[in-house]
Amino acid sequence: MTSIQKAACIGGGVIGGAWAARFLLGGIDVAMYDPHPEAKRIVGEVIANAERAYAMLTMAPLPPKGTLTFYPTIEEAVEGADWIQESVPERVDLKRSVITQIDAAANPEALIGSSTSGIMPTDLQRDMKHPERMFVAHPYNPVYLLPLAELVGGMKTSPATLELAKARLAPIGMVGVILKKEIEAFVGDRLLEAVWREGLWLIHDDICDTETLDDVIRYSFGIRWAQMGMFETYRIAGGEAGMRHFLAQFGPCLSWPWTKLTDVVDLDDALVDKIAGQSDAQSGARGIRELERIRDENLVGIMQALKGADGGKGWGAGKILAGFEKHLWSQGGAKSGGRVAEPDYSTPLRLVYTKVSPAWVDYNGHMTEHRYLQVFGDTSDALLRLIGVDFAYVEAGHSYYTVETHIRHLGEAKLGQRIHSTLQLLSTDDKRIRFFTTIHDSETGDALATAEQLMLHVDSKAGKSVGAPAEVLDRLQPIAQAHARLTEPEGTGRFVGQKR
Amino acid sequence: MTSIQKAACIGGGVIGGAWAARFLLGGIDVAMYDPHPEAKRIVGEVIANAERAYAMLTMAPLPPKGTLTFYPTIEEAVEGADWIQESVPERVDLKRSVITQIDAAANPEALIGSSTSGIMPTDLQRDMKHPERMFVAHPYNPVYLLPLAELVGGMKTSPATLELAKARLAPIGMVGVILKKEIEAFVGDRLLEAVWREGLWLIHDDICDTETLDDVIRYSFGIRWAQMGMFETYRIAGGEAGMRHFLAQFGPCLSWPWTKLTDVVDLDDALVDKIAGQSDAQSGARGIRELERIRDENLVGIMQALKGADGGKGWGAGKILAGFEKHLWSQGGAKSGGRVAEPDYSTPLRLVYTKVSPAWVDYNGHMTEHRYLQVFGDTSDALLRLIGVDFAYVEAGHSYYTVETHIRHLGEAKLGQRIHSTLQLLSTDDKRIRFFTTIHDSETGDALATAEQLMLHVDSKAGKSVGAPAEVLDRLQPIAQAHARLTEPEGTGRFVGQKR
Repeated sequence: MTSIQKAACIGGGVIGGAWAARFLLGGIDVAMYDPHPEAKRIVGEVIANAERAYAMLTMAPLPPKGTLTFYPTIEEAVEGADWIQESVPERVDLKRSVITQIDAAANPEALIGSSTSGIMPTDLQRDMKHPERMFVAHPYNPVYLLPLAELVGGMKTSPATLELAKARLAPIGMVGVILKKEIEAFVGDRLLEAVWREGLWLIHDDICDTETLDDVIRYSFGIRWAQMGMFETYRIAGGEAGMRHFLAQFGPCLSWPWTKLTDVVDLDDALVDKIAGQSDAQSGARGIRELERIRDENLVGIMQALKGADGGKGWGAGKILAGFEKHLWSQGGAKSGGRVAEPDYSTPLRLVYTKVSPAWVDYNGHMTEHRYLQVFGDTSDALLRLIGVDFAYVEAGHSYYTVETHIRHLGEAKLGQRIHSTLQLLSTDDKRIRFFTTIHDSETGDALATAEQLMLHVDSKAGKSVGAPAEVLDRLQPIAQAHARLTEPEGTGRFVGQKR
Repeated sequence: MTSIQKAACIGGGVIGGAWAARFLLGGIDVAMYDPHPEAKRIVGEVIANAERAYAMLTMAPLPPKGTLTFYPTIEEAVEGADWIQESVPERVDLKRSVITQIDAAANPEALIGSSTSGIMPTDLQRDMKHPERMFVAHPYNPVYLLPLAELVGGMKTSPATLELAKARLAPIGMVGVILKKEIEAFVGDRLLEAVWREGLWLIHDDICDTETLDDVIRYSFGIRWAQMGMFETYRIAGGEAGMRHFLAQFGPCLSWPWTKLTDVVDLDDALVDKIAGQSDAQSGARGIRELERIRDENLVGIMQALKGADGGKGWGAGKILAGFEKHLWSQGGAKSGGRVAEPDYSTPLRLVYTKVSPAWVDYNGHMTEHRYLQVFGDTSDALLRLIGVDFAYVEAGHSYYTVETHIRHLGEAKLGQRIHSTLQLLSTDDKRIRFFTTIHDSETGDALATAEQLMLHVDSKAGKSVGAPAEVLDRLQPIAQAHARLTEPEGTGRFVGQKR
């Protein structure tokens, strides 16, 4: 994939800070310019949120985090950057002047994206020397999790710019969706404004309160739209006869009096008070930080669920996540240093660091049994990557399969607890790897569970075990030899129910 | 919970059929009236979809399925029903006449809900003798998965009716959301129509095609709205300053020219052709049945992800699912006969029947390692329910915890494969249960994996093992004694790597 080498973020805040988090967690160095006195704190909080979310999002090996540097001027920040993202307040004169300033200082080849949620790129690129590389890249909050960037070109933007921008977003887990024409508010915000306008009328007219309106959305079309959008959903509603039938059936509603859209609601003090009061009643028991945390955990859970969809190929935002992970795996061997430890073989390998996520716990907040085996499996996957059995190796037709596992539960992992695993090789030959993994509480180091496992090297098409090739064994042997000098851990060779 | 004892569905089709599926899978007998010559086939297909979805949705014990009976007249269908759901075509004269006919024949205490997506209940209850028990219960497609029913009363509807309707929907996994006032199209369809209208303009004006529009939705606010609705999402966007700040910041957009909502698009032949053509290009490679299957699997995955949210308490539609499952578990012991086998102890217990779901497989379509342990865990849970260790027992402070597990992988389970498990007790005492579970391919009966496990009875607050009470041991002993006469299965007592 085409990668961004160095990014500059002009303007921090919730949007600019989250762009920075996307870049940093994608392994890209970020230069930040933001004159706000609290910029460092705000950006730092957003990045902390993003790191927490990524820790839950994927077990794929993230690259070493990029470095964030604040600069006192736009000119210094954009120097050497090949992607510059403008996220200053939503005023056309301010944005145009900042973008003109970026343009003058930046490498002429650098792409310049604006985070504007509504201003047409033609209006922003007016005074640029190199307007062909400027475009709108409109993201959605939280930018570090939601994959969408609407890519919109102005009159002077070159089509190649949009294609290049799209290609460069993929390696950081985003999807650039190119619009055919520019229009104020683009596509997403047009749709959102339509709902917002109608929603304000429903509150104004006391048809329901804000909580009821939100419930109506999230118990019905909200979860439909998380996976298919509007047209594909309605295509299904049209049944075998498809979209044309649906249009014939529901088109007439457009002229029915089912909307107040022709009026604009007056957002006067009384309505503001009503909405703010109802929103307090609905969500006021939780602070913004808690709501953010819940939102992020939910988004992660939804994307992970969609990642497994359509026979494992992924669907919607889950397909984007699957592609992102495939990219990370393919890079993982080369750049390891994220989650995969440096090769120090004198002690058991520390391979997986994670946190007990909400999807892993029962109603009492305890990690469920099979999630321990998931962590054990992630650990053996990390071992395999370390010896060169990576995505490409498996795609080419060989792999190691687990044939036998013995688990002991020694403690309990609870929601949110930080845990990590260590792995010690017990015995190996050309087909077999027998090893012992321990899941630890990362605070105390206590063992929470152990697994003794046996893996066999297999030809996956033939479905039978075969010897591993020399290049794998050559990477396995140094670890096996080093671990042969370690004491065999307590608990190996047990059968179920054996006395201590 | 207040339960429906017998339901009548007047009108089959996609909506009426899916209501029937909800009732039937909730253990409620359904009387159906639909004069359409293909009604039985159509309703049968919807019920088959629903059963497939439920098999993925929950491991909680479903009650024995209700019985579906077709009747030639409305009068016969409504006899003895305490919930009658009208789902005939969307014409006010037709609906009013059908509802008047239902009213005349039904028990005066029976609730009468209309599935109308837009007609005001006052217009439907005009000619009824007992209009106080009539209301709109507007569901969303697919009704068997999406939990929402908008409950709307007319001028003559009693408030008690809406509360009773809400209470009766909970045991079938639905959530009745009561609106304060009636309005045409209620809340959900007002919001949907606003988006639909704006979306049609975007396609008409060639800003994007239908696939791009759908991508914009599902990669951004779609997954936001799956878990929080509009107001709670915006509250977070307002940051610490909350909703009032958000309104001050974004309210002004309402008067900006960011919408074409004041015009109504002319849905002429050219626009119909364009939309139908773009929709074919977007989704035409997959048939409606395939899209339905993918949609249902995605909805299940999203709801399951949200079920684990907020520290395991569940969020949004996942919280509704958690409540539904809690209800099913609480009923499970009493009514067992769904998934939990009848107590025949002369052979290993057949406890879990399931299918390898999309969320369980790797990118090659093979069930991942830890999902085997999930099925083993579901099997031991089913054993525990059989001996009275159910939800209430665990809530009261005692449980059995797994302390040791030995797994052998003998074959591979693939996406969509039907599998089941059998469990044989090996040894028990007052604290311990040692048992052996086998996961079988349900087609061939072949063993795919086995687990030998040891559970200890514990006082969960004290965190130590204690003897189980007599009422549990009394249910365990007959099984243990019967299983003592069975041959010990091959593979018990093994340690990892032991020669055969």
